[in-house]
Order: sequence, then C-alpha cells, then structure tokens
Amino acid sequence: MSTIQLFVTEMLGTMMLTLLGCSVVANAILPRTKGAGVGASWLLINFGWGLAVFSGVFVAFKSGAHINPAVTVGLLASGSDELGPGIAATAGNAAIYIAGQMAGAFLGAVLTYLAHKRHFDEEAPGAVKLAVFSTGPEIRSYGWNVVTEIIGTFVLVFVVLSFANWPGDLGPLAVALLVTGIGASLGGPTGYAINPARDLGPRIAHAILPIRGKGGSDWAYSWVPVVGPLIGGALGGALAPAVAF
Amino acid sequence: MSTIQLFVTEMLGTMMLTLLGCSVVANAILPRTKGAGVGASWLLINFGWGLAVFSGVFVAFKSGAHINPAVTVGLLASGSDELGPGIAATAGNAAIYIAGQMAGAFLGAVLTYLAHKRHFDEEAPGAVKLAVFSTGPEIRSYGWNVVTEIIGTFVLVFVVLSFANWPGDLGPLAVALLVTGIGASLGGPTGYAINPARDLGPRIAHAILPIRGKGGSDWAYSWVPVVGPLIGGALGGALAPAVAF
Amino acid sequence: MSTIQLFVTEMLGTMMLTLLGCSVVANAILPRTKGAGVGASWLLINFGWGLAVFSGVFVAFKSGAHINPAVTVGLLASGSDELGPGIAATAGNAAIYIAGQMAGAFLGAVLTYLAHKRHFDEEAPGAVKLAVFSTGPEIRSYGWNVVTEIIGTFVLVFVVLSFANWPGDLGPLAVALLVTGIGASLGGPTGYAINPARDLGPRIAHAILPIRGKGGSDWAYSWVPVVGPLIGGALGGALAPAVAF
Amino acid sequence: MSTIQLFVTEMLGTMMLTLLGCSVVANAILPRTKGAGVGASWLLINFGWGLAVFSGVFVAFKSGAHINPAVTVGLLASGSDELGPGIAATAGNAAIYIAGQMAGAFLGAVLTYLAHKRHFDEEAPGAVKLAVFSTGPEIRSYGWNVVTEIIGTFVLVFVVLSFANWPGDLGPLAVALLVTGIGASLGGPTGYAINPARDLGPRIAHAILPIRGKGGSDWAYSWVPVVGPLIGGALGGALAPAVAF
Repeated sequence: MSTIQLFVTEMLGTMMLTLLGCSVVANAILPRTKGAGVGASWLLINFGWGLAVFSGVFVAFKSGAHINPAVTVGLLASGSDELGPGIAATAGNAAIYIAGQMAGAFLGAVLTYLAHKRHFDEEAPGAVKLAVFSTGPEIRSYGWNVVTEIIGTFVLVFVVLSFANWPGDLGPLAVALLVTGIGASLGGPTGYAINPARDLGPRIAHAILPIRGKGGSDWAYSWVPVVGPLIGGALGGALAPAVAF
Repeated sequence: MSTIQLFVTEMLGTMMLTLLGCSVVANAILPRTKGAGVGASWLLINFGWGLAVFSGVFVAFKSGAHINPAVTVGLLASGSDELGPGIAATAGNAAIYIAGQMAGAFLGAVLTYLAHKRHFDEEAPGAVKLAVFSTGPEIRSYGWNVVTEIIGTFVLVFVVLSFANWPGDLGPLAVALLVTGIGASLGGPTGYAINPARDLGPRIAHAILPIRGKGGSDWAYSWVPVVGPLIGGALGGALAPAVAF
Repeated sequence: MSTIQLFVTEMLGTMMLTLLGCSVVANAILPRTKGAGVGASWLLINFGWGLAVFSGVFVAFKSGAHINPAVTVGLLASGSDELGPGIAATAGNAAIYIAGQMAGAFLGAVLTYLAHKRHFDEEAPGAVKLAVFSTGPEIRSYGWNVVTEIIGTFVLVFVVLSFANWPGDLGPLAVALLVTGIGASLGGPTGYAINPARDLGPRIAHAILPIRGKGGSDWAYSWVPVVGPLIGGALGGALAPAVAF
Repeated sequence: MSTIQLFVTEMLGTMMLTLLGCSVVANAILPRTKGAGVGASWLLINFGWGLAVFSGVFVAFKSGAHINPAVTVGLLASGSDELGPGIAATAGNAAIYIAGQMAGAFLGAVLTYLAHKRHFDEEAPGAVKLAVFSTGPEIRSYGWNVVTEIIGTFVLVFVVLSFANWPGDLGPLAVALLVTGIGASLGGPTGYAINPARDLGPRIAHAILPIRGKGGSDWAYSWVPVVGPLIGGALGGALAPAVAF
C-alpha cells in the first residue's frame, strides 16, 4: 500500500464515520427533521454512530481501519510491529494515518452540512448547531470531562485489541457494536468523542462553514476530546497484553 | 438463470422490501396501530426498513439481490463485468433487473395496503396515508432534497461495494445494518428513498388503489427520489475502486 | 432422535419462546414494571420477541427448531423430504412437532405468570392481563385480521426457506432478526401471532391460571391466530421454490 | 493458564461488564446526562448491558468468559469436565473464578463512579444513586423476587449451554443478544441481576465510595440477587443435557 493509498483510505473511512455520525445527531436535534418528528432517542444516536463506524471500517479495511488517532496511538503503545497489513509501526506512518483521519473527519462534516442544509437554515440555538459537529459536556468540568473521555477510549482500544482473543471474526460488526455500547453507557457526561479526529475535524468545519446563525466553536473545550482519547487509547493499548497470552 | 427467473427473483425480493418497509411506516403513523399505541420512534422505522432489506436480500440472493435500481446503475458505473452470478453487465440485463424491481415494489405496496386495510379506512390526513407509500421532504426544496438523496445513495452503493474489502462475509446482515444506519443518519430531511423503485412503485400503487380519503400522490416531488438515487448510485459505483486495490 | 426427544426438544424450545416473548409484553404493559417505568416501546417488544425466537431456536436446534406449527405446515407444503435432521416429512411426525410446541407454549406462559406474579396481582384491566398471553386486534374485523396474519406468516415461512439461498449461515440470528422485522412492520393491526402455538398455548394458560382480576380469554377471536398463520405458512412453503433454483 | 492469569482474566472481563453495565443505568437515571436529555428507555438499558457482556466476553475469552458466578456454578452442575480451556471443574478453580469476578465487579463500579463523578455530585434521591450500582425490586416481595431471578438466570445458563447445539459460532455476540433479550423480557420485576457478582460487587463499592448524598446500600435485599441466580444457574446447568444429545 502506497503512502497516498494509506492516506486516502483512512480519509474516506473517517469521512464515512463523521458523515453518518454527525448526521444522526443532526437528525435528532436540528429543527423539522423526521427523526425529531417521529421520536429520536439516545439509542438512535448510539446506533447511528455505531453503524457509522461499521461503514467506515469496511471502507478503510485495507489500511486496518483505524479511522481514529486514539487507535493508532493505542497500537503504538501496545508494542505491535505493524499498524496495518504490511505497514510498519513507525511515527512517520502514524502521522500519515492521523493526517488522513483529520482530512476525512473534516470532509464528512462538510457533507453532513450539505445533506442538512435547509435544516441548518432554520432558527436554532448556536449550541445546537455546534452539537451536530462536536461534542460538549453536560456539566463543564475539564478535569472530570477528561477522566470520562479517558475511560471511554480505554474501553474502546482495550476491547478492540481483545477481539483477537476469540478465534472467530465478526469484523466490522464487532467494533460497531462496541461503539454502540460505549455510547449507550459512557456517553452521558461528555457525548463520547473517544476519537480526536471525530471531534476536531468537524469543529474546524464548523468554524469555516457559512452556517446560518452559528455561534462560537467552543475552542476552550476542544482540547478535552483530543487529550482524553489519546491518553485512554495509549492506556488501552499498553494494558491489552494482560488478557492476550 | 433465465430472464424470467431474473425478473421474478428481483420482483419477489423487492416485493418483500416494500411490504416490510412500507408496513413499518404504516405501523408508526396510521391510526390505532399497536406501534402508535405502545410507542413508535424513528429507530423503529430504521430497523423496520433495515430488516426489510435483510429479508429481500435473502429472497433475491440468486440474482445478486440488487432490489434497487441505484445498485444496478452503481454496478454498471463501477465497471464490473457482471451484475449478478453469471449475468453480464449489459443495458438489457439492467433493464430486466429494474423492471422486476418496479413490479415488486408495486406488489409489496399493495400487500401493505391489504395488511392494514382497516387502518387505512380510518380518518387520517391524506399526507399521512401517502407517507406509508412514498417519501416526502420535511422542508420542500427540490435542489437540496436531491442533494440529500444523492449523498444517502452514494453511501449505500459505495459501502456495499466496499463489503468486499473484508475477507469475511456477513451477507444480508451487512446491508441490513448499513440501511438501518443510513436511515438513522441521513433520513431526516427527505425520508431516505435511496432507491427509485422503493419510492415510485408504491407511489403508483397509491395512485391506483381505492384508499379511503386519500389525497394526491405528490407527483411534483416524485422525480426527486428517482433522480437523486440514480446519481448517488452512479457516483458510489464510480468511486468504489478508490478503496479496493 | 427418538419421538420423546423430538417432543421434548420442541417443547423446551417453544417454552423458551413464550417465556421470553410473553414476558416482554408483561414488562411493557403490566403495572409497576421497570420497562413501563423507564420507557417501553414497540421496538422493545419486537426485539423481545425476536430474541425469544433466538433463544428458542438454540434450545430446539436438534429437531430443526420449528417451535411454530406454521413452520411445520410450511415445510410440508414446500415438498421437503424431511421436517428436521433425519425426521421424515410425515403427518405423524408433524403431529409430534405440534404437540411439543403446544405443550411448551403453555409452559412458557405459566413461567411468565410466575416471574411476574406480583405484577399480575396489581389492578389492571382484564384486557391488559390477557394481552400478556395472547394477541388481539386493534380493530376487530375477523376477515381482515386473518388477512394480516396470513401475510405476516407468509413472510416468515417464505423468508426462512429463502435463508438457504445464501451460502453462509447466521443460524438462529437470522430468524431472530426476521421475526423482529415482521413484528416491527406487520404487527400493527393484530399483534403478530404468526404462530398458532404461541397464541393458543398461552390462551389456555390464561384460562386455567388463577390470575387476579382476569377477564375472559376472548375465545371468539382465538381461531384467527390459528387459521391465519396456518394458511400463511402453507402459502410461504408452497411458493418458496420460486426463488430457490 | 496460571491461577493468577485466570483471576486477572475474569477480573478484567467482569470489570468491563459492570463498568459498561452500571454506566448505562447512570446515563439513563442520573441528573443532567445526555441519555436522560435526549431520551432514555428500557431498551437502551437492555442493549447497554447486552453490549457490556459482549465486551466482557472478549476480554475474558481465554478463561471461558464466565464473568458470572451463576455460570461457573451452572457449569459445575452440568457435569462438564472443564470450567474453561484446560481448567478442571474443581471447587478450587471455581473459587478462583468467583474471586476474580467479585474483584472485577467492584472495580467496574468504581470506574463507573469516576466516569460520572459530577453527575453523582448532583442532587438525586439516594435510591436513584444506589440503582446505578445494584438491582432492586419494583414490588418488594423476597419470595417472588427470588423466583424472578431464578427464572431469568435459568434462561441465561440453559441457553448459553444450548449454544453448542448449533454447529456455527456467533461467539460473544450470541451471549450479548441473549442478555439483551433476558433484560427486555424478564427484567421488569427485579432489574435482572442474573449474576451475583454484578450485584454484590457494585453494592460493596456503593457502601465504600464517598458518594455525595448517598443513602443506604439496601443490604436487606442483597441476598436475593445472590441466591436467586445461583439457584437458577444450577438448574439451568443441570437441565441443559436435556436438549444436547
């Protein structure tokens, strides 16, 4: 796999992730959508993000389908020789993964905007429009918000690396269900970024796009869903060998 | 597979798709159903359509289970040699696929009507009765409605063709989950036709059937869920090789 | 497999089906349950019955896991040589299947009663308590209610027999998802018996058990969820060869 | 596998179980969470616990993934030679399993507390805060509460041991779906402990942790979700051979 193929693959997979993921939030909270009309719920959002991962993993399967810098960092921390099939675990390769993820996360958010253009044109609080793009805490407390993101991402990376304990293979379905479960369980306080690219890429898109009546992009919080997931991913990767022997 | 077998297979698969798909909408919005009584939701509709695809794909598996003209067009656009097992990718064969899909989509809508006959006999706005059959936008804006349908169908065809990246095979479950996810995420503005036959076949049934108190069939909108999905499917097929190498 | 093994296997599988299936309805509609407290929904009931089938099919796998007379009749109608592994398709064997199913459906309803004893002791309309055991129509119209049950059971048997079109095998998961989907889509008018034993066995239990404040067992309707499913199952079995060639 | 590996594996698997399981309850009932804000439901809780099992089983796969003393006891009752791969079915090994499960269940509850620290700091009734950790009945009736827990755990162990009837293998997904179904169906009266460690470990954590405004830990009820599941698990294990021949 060439460097450009690696970049494009992670980009398109992460684009699919944020296109479907940000869109399920749009459907749940923007004015006049069908989801809001018939009845949205937290479980709708969890399945939406879980199936967004499902789709992204198929698209990016050839590169190992990280589509998340926390997974890339977790693999480095686990001591694995490779980041993907035939791709050495070097800092340079990790940077290509993360660059592709950031580009894709941005693009997926732009497509989310286009798919819901007329709903963004409706009146709604700026915080609602931002919430389609990026996570925010229900109770702002940077320290504890970081703790929540660390725990959620630890679960993600630790369990993903535990998939290999089972001799069978559910492939993209396993990680989809895991992310659905993490969202159902650990998404309550901060909205489960558990992925720096998923949060920062769409936040940049929010800052750039000409969204009607948008407010600020809450840059004060933006480091939390980057730092927390990176710490959690590294911890999950480092501890994974404890149950694989 | 003979021409008639191909036609019948796609017809019966698409009949199953619209029978189960239109019916979950009936259950959610017609008067005095159990779904409305205990509590319907957008996620119910998403799983209903996803599992409708699940059933339709098993029924039509022998022909490759397109059950959607956008998939047929997407396969042509991808440069594939075959549309199904042993079926050459010719315009003539594509026409047989699409004819079967249209016939089946119509039949499934008729069965939906029969299964809910007494609920259609109840008083309800004409728009509610039409919504069991065909999609309609929450905010009417033909240009942006087409954009939404293009994006949704692009995801469908691009990810379906990406299934082959994974060496495993979840078969009909994979496409069922994908459609559930697309509905959860991208169904908010237009109701996710993402399939010209799914929308046009039942719309014709709506126009013909003696539904009590029905209103118009909204032919002014009817081209959107045909043109958008065909464009999106062609784009998805054309771009699929980008992640399959 | 001996006759007694066949009987016991179908009995225990169908017992699991109605224990879990009737119980999800109890959880959704009886007074003071957790389901009613936190929020029940039609989708909860659909997944509850779908996963009840999931469990019952594992338990009864050795006999082919009919756990439904409509499936037994559908297999006879399909012209299959066998009803299960090594079990000839004779009327005598079919009778053993159905006897086991009826016994199990009754036992599962008794266990449902015991698991929810104190909730049945609470005040509630007789119709609510009956609804835990047996189906009933939202709009009483015997002819159209039969039509709805025919269509739902036709889908069940036709798609179950279509599972063989796919070379893979999801086993009990496939039928669980199918039943979840049929309930979501076609359960609105009559509550989807789609299984004579599932309805009649618990109805007999309702008539016998000393349920506090119970009303009548609605024997006037009881033939509908027997006759409809048997017709639908026979149609599904007879038409299944159309897509398997 | 060494004794320490067995202990650590069951500990980490059960930690994952109660971390994700207790957290979905926190998300559904604590003040100001996203789950409560957008709409929680009983099905959210069922999928949350089901996917908690999914994650725990992957983590603990090397030891056979009991993560539940009722499963350990059920295997002993079934007459199996082994409790896990290469682990003899002795009382001593069973004790190591259960010790690991208890330690892990406690740790998972502590992590749940940390992930939701600021939400526990909010005003809420003591019973709500306890409900994040341990189960409690909707109608207190020790005898019937035990019956409900016996039936639920019987289903769990009986069906888990029936998985082997199917020649395929869904692995952790099968038990995840089973637990989702048991919760949907049989969780209404008591909240489905169906696992002594899942209930007692977090109850001890509740008693020890400095939770703001916590009430008592309801020790009067604490024996029910221990004794009921152990009886139900033993019954399920003892009867499992009836359908495996």
